[in-house]
Formats: sequence, structure tokens, C-alpha cells
Amino acid sequence: MRRMIGVQEVEDIALGAAVLGTGGGGDPYIGKLMATQSIGDHGPVELVTIDEMGDDEWSVSIAMMGAPTVMVEKIPGGGEAQHAFNAVQSYLGKPIKYIYSIEAGGINSTIPIALAAQLHMPLLDLDGMGRAFPEIQMVTHNLFGITATPFTMADEKGNSAVLATIDNRWMETFARSIAVNMGATAHIAAYAASGAQQREAAVYGTMSLAESIGRGIREARAAHADVVDHICDITKGYVIFHGKIVDVQRRTVAGFARGEAIIDGIAEDLGHQMSIQFQNENLMAAKDGAIVVSVPDLITMVEEETGEPITTEGLRYGFRVKVVAMPSHPHWRTPAALKVVGPQYFGYEGEFVPVEQRMRGA
Amino acid sequence: MRRMIGVQEVEDIALGAAVLGTGGGGDPYIGKLMATQSIGDHGPVELVTIDEMGDDEWSVSIAMMGAPTVMVEKIPGGGEAQHAFNAVQSYLGKPIKYIYSIEAGGINSTIPIALAAQLHMPLLDLDGMGRAFPEIQMVTHNLFGITATPFTMADEKGNSAVLATIDNRWMETFARSIAVNMGATAHIAAYAASGAQQREAAVYGTMSLAESIGRGIREARAAHADVVDHICDITKGYVIFHGKIVDVQRRTVAGFARGEAIIDGIAEDLGHQMSIQFQNENLMAAKDGAIVVSVPDLITMVEEETGEPITTEGLRYGFRVKVVAMPSHPHWRTPAALKVVGPQYFGYEGEFVPVEQRMRGA
Repeated sequence: MRRMIGVQEVEDIALGAAVLGTGGGGDPYIGKLMATQSIGDHGPVELVTIDEMGDDEWSVSIAMMGAPTVMVEKIPGGGEAQHAFNAVQSYLGKPIKYIYSIEAGGINSTIPIALAAQLHMPLLDLDGMGRAFPEIQMVTHNLFGITATPFTMADEKGNSAVLATIDNRWMETFARSIAVNMGATAHIAAYAASGAQQREAAVYGTMSLAESIGRGIREARAAHADVVDHICDITKGYVIFHGKIVDVQRRTVAGFARGEAIIDGIAEDLGHQMSIQFQNENLMAAKDGAIVVSVPDLITMVEEETGEPITTEGLRYGFRVKVVAMPSHPHWRTPAALKVVGPQYFGYEGEFVPVEQRMRGA
Repeated sequence: MRRMIGVQEVEDIALGAAVLGTGGGGDPYIGKLMATQSIGDHGPVELVTIDEMGDDEWSVSIAMMGAPTVMVEKIPGGGEAQHAFNAVQSYLGKPIKYIYSIEAGGINSTIPIALAAQLHMPLLDLDGMGRAFPEIQMVTHNLFGITATPFTMADEKGNSAVLATIDNRWMETFARSIAVNMGATAHIAAYAASGAQQREAAVYGTMSLAESIGRGIREARAAHADVVDHICDITKGYVIFHGKIVDVQRRTVAGFARGEAIIDGIAEDLGHQMSIQFQNENLMAAKDGAIVVSVPDLITMVEEETGEPITTEGLRYGFRVKVVAMPSHPHWRTPAALKVVGPQYFGYEGEFVPVEQRMRGA
């Protein structure tokens, strides 16, 4: 299927992608501005499903990497995404026909739209996570042996880098250093993939799903319906906690925003407490000390009434939130995938238990 | 002038370049092994003076960067230099006809010979420092507006990076991080320069000078002559201290080997003490607390009898040394150059005073 997306779709995608972004992937307001401005200047973008892509056609993902705490302060200069794209194109030596999004998030779902508009190229309706993750190797494509190389980076000053590594974990190491040197954030182009590779490795339909979530939130707000219920309906999610943020500890370290939020229960959760650990993205949620949800399943805090997703850099004392947990894509739940994104990789004890299984047990 | 250099010339160059290397630029023994093996496999190398190079012909420098403390432990895999060269060649898009050495040093004067042999390409009789310096922007080419971009890096595992930066100070920042990630050392190719650029910016004749110094040391040893006197004759240098190393403090930090050596005077310097500060290379020499020589002038410790140059990573308690000071190339003594490599850049107080001026005053 092919269809055009314009300003309304971008607004819905930015909002819905921030729900899938689990606190990371960038601020939907900034993301929306970047993409709508680009569509205003260059016209709407064609969104294309995987079945339209030829096996031998090539695509590349565009994103921002770095600490989102810095991303909100440092406005891109404008040419960085195209600079990164051109570098991949020239290194790859094959014509790139499609842009795609590497992760769901307020910025990382909309930067590819902005570049697609600028280059008059179609955007694929898929991504490499179905959510957001903090590290470069945490991409479904990596699980299927697709390399992030050539990995290109550009900053707003005009500096650039082209990295080629023996595996995607090394890429994370190299690129993170460069991102720190570029001022804690950088534009990147990476994970060039053919149609055949996308068919095997990608998470299909993420852009459409984000749009559905965003539209659902918008319509529920207009109808004065329960917005968070709508989010759960669309994402097969669960409200796992309702409370008020009483403490947020965060530090920007090694190019990441790491920290913890403490939420005191209100209403049905009065007397309970939830703690949420994050590294750019929310990773673990524990209620009264017991783990309720963990990576790779999705944990997103939304404002209790409006359903507005709250990014980790936006967490503030006093916010009244509902914590929504959503099942991750099946690609992430294999033993091999859990080595890459499971709780133990991030230094937590205990095995991953799917959220729907925990909810049945609860 | 064009002439062939073989195994004897390489041995002399490695030894003499270590004298010019002011404690840095790599161990001459390892450098000699790398180049003689390559010449054994591929035949001798043609050494070409600047007047033979056409204005529109292109050259590129090859080197190792990183902490020399690690370089002596981590043996290259073999293909790294060629990997880095190929990446520059493909990015530059112009045929590269000559290899050159970016700095004088036991390894960084011989790695270009090894690659020239491997690629059957001529080597230019010049370099970018006339000595060794610790940072990427500390190259005479930088003083003349020549960019280090495209700057390519390769490690022994197979990882590589191509960096393009808005100035050469940024290159130092980016490349240093990657070098640390590559295991504290990396092979690099950089500072592609045309014949016209080399004519303006290079330090001419450094390879021949290194060879003369090395041959002088060898012949003086054979003749049981005073080896250190010979070194001073050839380099217009001065013996500024004679003593025994009584303390060496060093730490490998941010990809550099930094530290200080303390030398207690013996013979004519009995009762005096010299301290030498280094960052890969020797930077400052102070006698009884007063500065005697500073960057950009050259400070090299040599074994008192054999004249064997001692690299900063080879400094050991109990070594009996003479400290030799040599004037730097005039390119380094302008006010603009002193901002790049003068004492104040390295955090020391006081203005640069040419060593020959201090010696006249002494």
C-alpha cells in the first residue's frame, strides 16, 4: 500500500511514536516541528508498506543519537540528516530508494519523514525496534545479521564521520564517543538494508501504528473519553500504575541520560510505590520493590488525563501519571534477542517475563 | 633526487628518527622490524625529494596514533595501514602517488616505508613536524591551512573510521576518542597534500636527516667515538644535562602517556637535578627548577655511552642518560605556530625561548 502523509498525519505519528518510545526517541513537539516544516517546504511524503519494496531495492535509516536531555536544548542546523544520508549513499555505492525509521519516538519517527520530504523519497512503514532502545546494536536488523556499517554521523557544525566496524556492538562504542564529541547529540544514517533484508528483519507497520495511537489520543481527547484506555486498546497495553512523581534522579553520563523516577500511588494505587529505571528509555518498572515489567517490553508514562506521553528528559516532580506497559515485538523475545536487550544486559537480575503473562498472574 | 632505500637505510632511519622523536613517535626496534619485513617481502623503496614532486600530484601520510605505552604491547595485524590508505584514496577521489611520514619517530618514520614497499609507491623525503608531537593539529601543514580531512583510521580487528571535520583541532578530539576505543592505538592516514602544498608546508629532508643521525650513531659506535657528540654535530644540538634517572611517573590518560622523569646529575652535573615533563613526547626540561628547553624545541634523552634514544615509554629508574636539546624547524617558531605547539598550549607558564639563545646566555 502507498499513501501520502501530510501535516495531520505527522502530528499523530509524533504523538503516537512517543507512546511507543518508552520515554526515549525524542520530544514529540520538536519532532513534529521538524517534520511539518519540511513537509511545508517540500510537500507531503509517500508512506509505503513492505510488500511494495523490491528485494533488491535499498533503504537506509535516519535518526538522532545521543542524550535526549541535550537534544531538547540543541536545535539542529538543518543539513545534518542530508549530510549523513549523502555519506552513506556515497559509501554504499548502490542507489538508496527508501528512507526508514530505526526506532519509534517523538523525534526518531519524524526525522525520517523530514528527510524523505526534503529528498522527495518514499518512507517505509516499518522500523527497527517497534519501540525505542538506547544502543545501536538494539535493532531487530542486528538480530538477523544486518550490519549498521556504513554508519555515518554529522553535527550542526559541519563535522562528519563514516564508521565501519566488525560488529554492531563495536559500532555502539565508536559512535557513542563521537556523539559525545559532537556535543552529546548527532544525526546518523545507518543500517542500510535491501528489501529482502527488511522483509526478514524489520518490525512492520510501526509508522501506521504510531499514527493510529496518535489519532486515537486526539479523538479520545475531543470526545472527552478515557484517553489512556484508548492507548491500551490500540497497543494491547495495560495500566500498571497510577500515581504522582515524587522524585526524579538523572545524570547525563557517557552520552546517555540515566536515572530513576519514583511514583507514589494515588486513587486505586494509594499506599503503593513504583520505581522506574531508565537509560534514555524506561527499562524496568517495580511496584513496592517487585519487578512488574522489564525490557524488552514497553513502559511508558503518560499524563493521567490527556494521555500525553512523558519522555525521560521531561519527567518532573508532581506530574500525575499512569504507567502503561505494552508487549514487545516477538523478534525481541527469543533467547538470542534477550541477550541483546534483556534485563541482564542492562545489569538487572532475573529473567524476562512477558508482560501479558505477568498480568495474567496478577 | 631519487634513490632506493633498503634494510641498512631503514635501520639508520629508525634509530635517527627516534632521536628526532623527542621520546615519542614509537620504539625504533619495532619500527625497524615492521619496515625491514616489508622491504624483505616487497623490495626496496624509492625515496624522493620535494623537487621531484609535481604541483598537482598527491601524497598522503601514514602513521600510528595513540599511547606509545600500549603500542609496544599491541602488535599490528598487518593490513591496517593499507586499510587506512585505501579509505583515504577512495574518499579523496584523486590518485595518490606518494606516501609520506607525518612525524619523525621510531615507528612513525618507518610505517610509511613499510606501506610504500607494500604498495610499490615512492616515499617523500620530508615530514610534517621535523620531530614528533602528541596531537593531530600539531603538523606544519596545519599552519598552512591544509586539512587533515579525510582522516581515516583502522585497527587490527578490522574496524575503521573516516572522519571529516571543520578544523584540525576537532579532528584531534574525534580521532583521539576513536583511537581510545580501538584499544588506545590505531593506524591512520591523513593530511593528503598536493605537491604545491608540500612545497609550502612540509619540513624538507627529515627522512635523510634521520638516516644521517642513525648512520652517525652507528659509525661513532664502531669507531668508539663519543656518540652523543656526533648526534649534536648533526642536529646542531646541545647536551643540556648528564645524569641518572631516579624517578619516573607516568599514567596513560585520555589516550596519551603523560608523566615526568627526574634525573639526578652525575659527572659535570653532579649536585644538580633535571625534571622532564612529557605527553607522549618530551615537552619541557627544567634544571634545578628553571626551564632550560621547551616545546617546540626538541628534547631527547639518550643512553650516555651508546647514544641510544630512550622513548618516554622506555624510561626506567637507573638509566644513565644525556639530555640533548635541538632547535626546532623555523615553521614552529612563529607567533601563530607557538599558539599551536608553544609551552602555553601545554599548560606551562612563560614564553618560548629558542634553545640556541638560551645556550648563548648560559
